[in-house]
Amino acid sequence: MDRIQKEMERRRPGRNAFSTQRNESDQAEIISGYFNEHTTGTPLTAIIKNSDKRSNDYSYLQTIMRPGHADYSGKIRYSGFNDYRGGGHFSGRLTAPLVFAGAIATQVLEAKGIYTASHIKSIYNIEDAVYSSEAISKELLESLRSSDFPVLDAFVGEKMKAEILAAKEDKDSVGGVIETAVLNIPTGIGNPFFESIESKLAAMMFSIPAVKGIEFGIGFDFTKMRGSKANDILQYENGVVVSKTNNNGGINGGISNGMPIIFSVAIKPTPSISKEQDTINVDNKRNTKLEIKGRHDPCIVQRAIPVIEAATALVVVDMLLEKQSL
Amino acid sequence: MDRIQKEMERRRPGRNAFSTQRNESDQAEIISGYFNEHTTGTPLTAIIKNSDKRSNDYSYLQTIMRPGHADYSGKIRYSGFNDYRGGGHFSGRLTAPLVFAGAIATQVLEAKGIYTASHIKSIYNIEDAVYSSEAISKELLESLRSSDFPVLDAFVGEKMKAEILAAKEDKDSVGGVIETAVLNIPTGIGNPFFESIESKLAAMMFSIPAVKGIEFGIGFDFTKMRGSKANDILQYENGVVVSKTNNNGGINGGISNGMPIIFSVAIKPTPSISKEQDTINVDNKRNTKLEIKGRHDPCIVQRAIPVIEAATALVVVDMLLEKQSL
Amino acid sequence: MDRIQKEMERRRPGRNAFSTQRNESDQAEIISGYFNEHTTGTPLTAIIKNSDKRSNDYSYLQTIMRPGHADYSGKIRYSGFNDYRGGGHFSGRLTAPLVFAGAIATQVLEAKGIYTASHIKSIYNIEDAVYSSEAISKELLESLRSSDFPVLDAFVGEKMKAEILAAKEDKDSVGGVIETAVLNIPTGIGNPFFESIESKLAAMMFSIPAVKGIEFGIGFDFTKMRGSKANDILQYENGVVVSKTNNNGGINGGISNGMPIIFSVAIKPTPSISKEQDTINVDNKRNTKLEIKGRHDPCIVQRAIPVIEAATALVVVDMLLEKQSL
Amino acid sequence: MDRIQKEMERRRPGRNAFSTQRNESDQAEIISGYFNEHTTGTPLTAIIKNSDKRSNDYSYLQTIMRPGHADYSGKIRYSGFNDYRGGGHFSGRLTAPLVFAGAIATQVLEAKGIYTASHIKSIYNIEDAVYSSEAISKELLESLRSSDFPVLDAFVGEKMKAEILAAKEDKDSVGGVIETAVLNIPTGIGNPFFESIESKLAAMMFSIPAVKGIEFGIGFDFTKMRGSKANDILQYENGVVVSKTNNNGGINGGISNGMPIIFSVAIKPTPSISKEQDTINVDNKRNTKLEIKGRHDPCIVQRAIPVIEAATALVVVDMLLEKQSL
Repeated sequence: MDRIQKEMERRRPGRNAFSTQRNESDQAEIISGYFNEHTTGTPLTAIIKNSDKRSNDYSYLQTIMRPGHADYSGKIRYSGFNDYRGGGHFSGRLTAPLVFAGAIATQVLEAKGIYTASHIKSIYNIEDAVYSSEAISKELLESLRSSDFPVLDAFVGEKMKAEILAAKEDKDSVGGVIETAVLNIPTGIGNPFFESIESKLAAMMFSIPAVKGIEFGIGFDFTKMRGSKANDILQYENGVVVSKTNNNGGINGGISNGMPIIFSVAIKPTPSISKEQDTINVDNKRNTKLEIKGRHDPCIVQRAIPVIEAATALVVVDMLLEKQSL
Repeated sequence: MDRIQKEMERRRPGRNAFSTQRNESDQAEIISGYFNEHTTGTPLTAIIKNSDKRSNDYSYLQTIMRPGHADYSGKIRYSGFNDYRGGGHFSGRLTAPLVFAGAIATQVLEAKGIYTASHIKSIYNIEDAVYSSEAISKELLESLRSSDFPVLDAFVGEKMKAEILAAKEDKDSVGGVIETAVLNIPTGIGNPFFESIESKLAAMMFSIPAVKGIEFGIGFDFTKMRGSKANDILQYENGVVVSKTNNNGGINGGISNGMPIIFSVAIKPTPSISKEQDTINVDNKRNTKLEIKGRHDPCIVQRAIPVIEAATALVVVDMLLEKQSL
Repeated sequence: MDRIQKEMERRRPGRNAFSTQRNESDQAEIISGYFNEHTTGTPLTAIIKNSDKRSNDYSYLQTIMRPGHADYSGKIRYSGFNDYRGGGHFSGRLTAPLVFAGAIATQVLEAKGIYTASHIKSIYNIEDAVYSSEAISKELLESLRSSDFPVLDAFVGEKMKAEILAAKEDKDSVGGVIETAVLNIPTGIGNPFFESIESKLAAMMFSIPAVKGIEFGIGFDFTKMRGSKANDILQYENGVVVSKTNNNGGINGGISNGMPIIFSVAIKPTPSISKEQDTINVDNKRNTKLEIKGRHDPCIVQRAIPVIEAATALVVVDMLLEKQSL
Repeated sequence: MDRIQKEMERRRPGRNAFSTQRNESDQAEIISGYFNEHTTGTPLTAIIKNSDKRSNDYSYLQTIMRPGHADYSGKIRYSGFNDYRGGGHFSGRLTAPLVFAGAIATQVLEAKGIYTASHIKSIYNIEDAVYSSEAISKELLESLRSSDFPVLDAFVGEKMKAEILAAKEDKDSVGGVIETAVLNIPTGIGNPFFESIESKLAAMMFSIPAVKGIEFGIGFDFTKMRGSKANDILQYENGVVVSKTNNNGGINGGISNGMPIIFSVAIKPTPSISKEQDTINVDNKRNTKLEIKGRHDPCIVQRAIPVIEAATALVVVDMLLEKQSL
């Protein structure tokens, strides 16, 4: 439970100047499946109550559709019956349960020596270093997880923070890329086709609001290379099969090859900004102007990190279970 | 059936100089679920026999692991019992059934006025134009589908072909990016979280060999923009809700917003190349050299296009069914 | 919401002398998915808190395994981590959520003119009449649903009650058979093989504690007939296809044939009885004696009825959705 | 492969006077997933071609609906596009693939010391003995599997055969009950609620044509007992937990309790009989007479046995996998 609350705390808003100043306690209350300090094996249920809701802040969302949000697509999807308060089912708050579940999965993985952590690969046009296979270690990953703003190059990190604060100053927002590593996953996990590691991880990642792209290993950069350079050359090193490069991000044919699993996701800039924007009023069917009041995240990349790590852990546990490797 | 065979023909190898010269007929023989020229509603089964197999070409694959392929990860995954001939279950031939199924889904969608087509967005460092919301039309999409090498800018297409032939000349290979559009999908299809349109499409796309990245709308480019520029501004146009930009690729909160669905996938360079490569022999556990004989695709991007269109159609039909919109 | 609470009330313990005198309020508190008196389309969540828990009553369950219960199989299944209080995840209370969900499904079905209700077909050796296709009507089914102890023959009902009270007097229990009808389900719903109506209904019914058998139409009595008598003879009646008999319970080949769906489930006698019983103590691995204290249901058949009706409604809604018939 | 063909042979028609004289070879041809005499781990596909089809025998099925068959419900389900030849997707031949798959599952189970076999519990009103927990042994089960007409009491078996031949003589048919045992399944397999052993086995059994009822342990007979008699009394016997009676058929709370799993299914009399029957013509929408020509099974109970054993093995393997017990 301590570990769960610690992970929940990492995602919680209001922690620093780069996040929204909404103050939510994000306390998980377990109501089934936990007894005598152990999970029971039957469904584990927890409630995370919204401690800072001000539902009336959001009444305008019934008619004014925020650009970049799911207000309009969601309204049509649910025939107008959707709960529009606070963004309803599309709120970023819905990622808190993922963090809860992922905190448990993470403990399961760590007991098997499997570690996962992310760093901010870029914010706007400021770019961090990337994971190199040699440098990835349990220690590096643990160090990243203990940071509020994890980067490989601390100097770059400061520039990223400045970029976020500049956007905040302009009533605007920025996005970025998160790179995630999974260390020590056994070789031979996953499947070709519909249950590939990439399929499972991608499907999970696109469940996280604001994620608009994913690539494994060097991903889109593969398309700028010839095959002779792109192929990861296999070799025996002390009797173990490794590859010098890890362009494929630890996955061939949907199956783990023993190298660290590496992938990057694109997080779009927070759509809620204080700047005035053009949009529509679906009540009178007219175009209108909108100035979103309240406290916004000028950047959610750093808050998305514990969510992405949690989601990763959930997928990896599932895939290990499927291969009977837990 | 004619339409199915036409789609199969688009994927078939041996059609031109940019593809492998293996000659497979790719004839689908239906063995259940089709009667009196209609599907019956019970399971539809077809067999696509391998007409050009030369299993002995591949006997070395039992011990020599081709770089960039799933030879090694697959061998561990299946404890050495995998059928290594021709790459076995990891062969690109396994996409032929997707094309078969997609050809049916495509007909279902077209009957509802929904069209999908792809173009080659880039090969190596040669870049085509991108879809603009205004230019996407049924006519454009049909024209792209009728081309062996679909591009928006024909001049760029010629440069791409030259790039592929140059790689072929060097016993090497290149990859590229494919951009796909779905036109006229109803607003309100899809779901937030685990069954988002992005989740479903991404999971399917990563089932296609050589796909290593996917992005929706402007995807990773979102991370280089501020929110005020990234947000798609909604407006009424003749009573219909549209957005000037379509940065989100027609999807907000996992749900279609009425604009065309747009996504791009990264296809890595064909890992089978004729150049000599370093690799391992798992039998004697030594490093070795490998020169892959035979006929390779110097680029599979153009052959992947009908596969990606088929896979897209399958997902879209599923999502329409789920919303009871068929 | 009124309808939901009304259905919850039907299952609630402590209503009369035939049920346990535990007094649970069974109040459902909705915590998501409901807004402005409508479901929103996103996950509907409710909590039914246990208002009468006396967890200490149950501490002996850690070591003494009650005969006929899942105490022993569950302990092994969950490696001893199971929550044994009140039977934990195996408690009959876990059927309350089914009733909650079924109350919603029932309203969906009634809006389509589809009705479902059950009667007590037998208690111990006292047998009620059975549904005849001619007699099944909306009015009959509504009348059965409004009864605490629904039977077709009121005189038989009184004998059943006496039988239950006699068992109670003897610190013992009895079981019985429940017969359920679904009226006005469209023809052509369901599937052969793995998703047959029978498969779906049976899987759901065996999720209800104490159910140990299910039969469709005349079920096991089919085996005492020759085919010429067993076959339901089809005929046109005012242009509609009907059958005089409904031995198949409205289902052929896993698919609805337009006649009422009829099935019966066997409910075993409540395993919790006040009589002393032999059993085991898993702590000292010895045989022992057990006298279960507290308030037991001498018969749960009448309380199982709203659960079975709810479970039926859930399955029927699913099957209609699958055929796009809602 | 030998074992597979042996099991296929057990189901094959035309073996003796109690079955149809249609002569089908039921030869399975494996087309994927099998290499060097081992399964590869990728999808295993086989085709069982219909060697004795006489499609024109069945042309009347387009308009004349056979009583007791799925001709009518299936026609509506598939909007008239169903393949009516030979009963199409509802043909008993569709159980041959179950036998194929079950033959593999059976080998997996036997390697773990788990055995399953069935006997004919009744034909019409002739009843065999029932399994007693003490008598069930590997030897008994193997002996039953080696018989064409497995019964516990050979004398009763002869009376059953006479009953079948009498029905055949009268151009009629009979049904019966099959009792199945699974020996040595580990304790603690299965789940409460939606994935109970009963739910899984029942769903599978109702996929088999002509099954109209299922009961676990003493099933419906539970309802004729008081709890004090019905409860299986647990006791230690040489340190192992056993119960004297096995009324619950080895399952409590959906989970195996270590005793043999026992269940019975009701098989209705073959609906295809040579006797003239009343029915409908859906073409002219009139009532009509039907005399079904051809070769019918006067009883399919004995032929259903290998199907039920195969289906059982498939479910048990799935449940063991789910508990990571294989």
